[in-house]
Amino acid sequence: MKTRTTFDQALDELKHDILRMGFYVEEAISRAVDSLAKQDESMAQSVLEGDILIDNQQQEIEDKCMKLIATQQPLAKDLRRIAAGLMIITDLERMGDLACDIAKITKRLVGQSLIKPLIDIPRMAQLAQKMVKEALDAYVREDVQLATTMAADDDLVDSLHNQVFRELLVYMMENPKIINQATALLFASRHLERIADHATNIGERIVYLVTGERKELND
Amino acid sequence: MKTRTTFDQALDELKHDILRMGFYVEEAISRAVDSLAKQDESMAQSVLEGDILIDNQQQEIEDKCMKLIATQQPLAKDLRRIAAGLMIITDLERMGDLACDIAKITKRLVGQSLIKPLIDIPRMAQLAQKMVKEALDAYVREDVQLATTMAADDDLVDSLHNQVFRELLVYMMENPKIINQATALLFASRHLERIADHATNIGERIVYLVTGERKELND
Repeated sequence: MKTRTTFDQALDELKHDILRMGFYVEEAISRAVDSLAKQDESMAQSVLEGDILIDNQQQEIEDKCMKLIATQQPLAKDLRRIAAGLMIITDLERMGDLACDIAKITKRLVGQSLIKPLIDIPRMAQLAQKMVKEALDAYVREDVQLATTMAADDDLVDSLHNQVFRELLVYMMENPKIINQATALLFASRHLERIADHATNIGERIVYLVTGERKELND
Repeated sequence: MKTRTTFDQALDELKHDILRMGFYVEEAISRAVDSLAKQDESMAQSVLEGDILIDNQQQEIEDKCMKLIATQQPLAKDLRRIAAGLMIITDLERMGDLACDIAKITKRLVGQSLIKPLIDIPRMAQLAQKMVKEALDAYVREDVQLATTMAADDDLVDSLHNQVFRELLVYMMENPKIINQATALLFASRHLERIADHATNIGERIVYLVTGERKELND
């Protein structure tokens, strides 16, 4: 029984580490989009510099997972829990990179006045952040219900992205001078849409972990 | 010794499976960009329909990896080999998705005459395909040298992407009527640039597997 308890503790610690990494990622998304909306170059820079912390967490968690597998020879279900963790941190790391891509867009646009105040893009960021948070809660609690409802928000993010896309195309056609800025915002929107996809991946991963079923939560 | 031999066979089979999955992904990239250059809707459709095969391969390989870990309790180095395999198929699956994103762009543009014959985008696709092929060869042979030289091509893909980007911006400013098409091509170029990044990820994974060092091959 003792070994099992040690293992359970290690698994709790793993979940805790993943939650913390998720917190950093949520912060990065939020700050990246804030920096864009407020044209705040130093905030964008802080997102770029903070990415190393996210990368380091991924590596540490991965190392812990491997050590856990190698030394504890976990049962099938526990092994799947660890594997899910490994996959989740890959998605989180990628979200961190996408936040950096948005921060780079801020730096590119700084000094230009924005075509119009950003409304939909920050809204997408809020939704994406909420999805990340709920996806990780669902992982910790192994909550299929939450994993599924969380992923439903992906549709909202997608439709906001389509709306932003159409709107920016119209702007560009009306005023070719803003094409450079508009394409940059187009990419920012697309990056957020991708972040939401990664959160959905996490949801699917949890459904698979708990039910053994591979199911597309949103396509 | 017998168990060890069985395990080695299983590991060879795993590598073989990953190579096959990689072949499908290379094909998808090549056909997606071909469909775009030739405005061939049915070819684009075949890429979209073929994605399920790539997804299925990922799932089968993942299941095999998990079974291998659970039943064979591999040594540390072998465990890392399997873990590398798990990470590589995640990158491959994502490349398949990006090929689909390009195929969707073909479908969106079909019937419009292209602004100009595509030259740089197919060139990027060839480079990306070569990178995927070499990355997987490097994995099978655990060849750090090849993993490193392969990743150097990422710079070429990046600089082609930047060139395409600048060129398309100029086109759009000169002729707002083609903005819709030009943004679509911009995204296609970006997707290829991301595919090359995923190939670079695989290279980094191999360097880590063989040397234990985490090194950014291209940034």
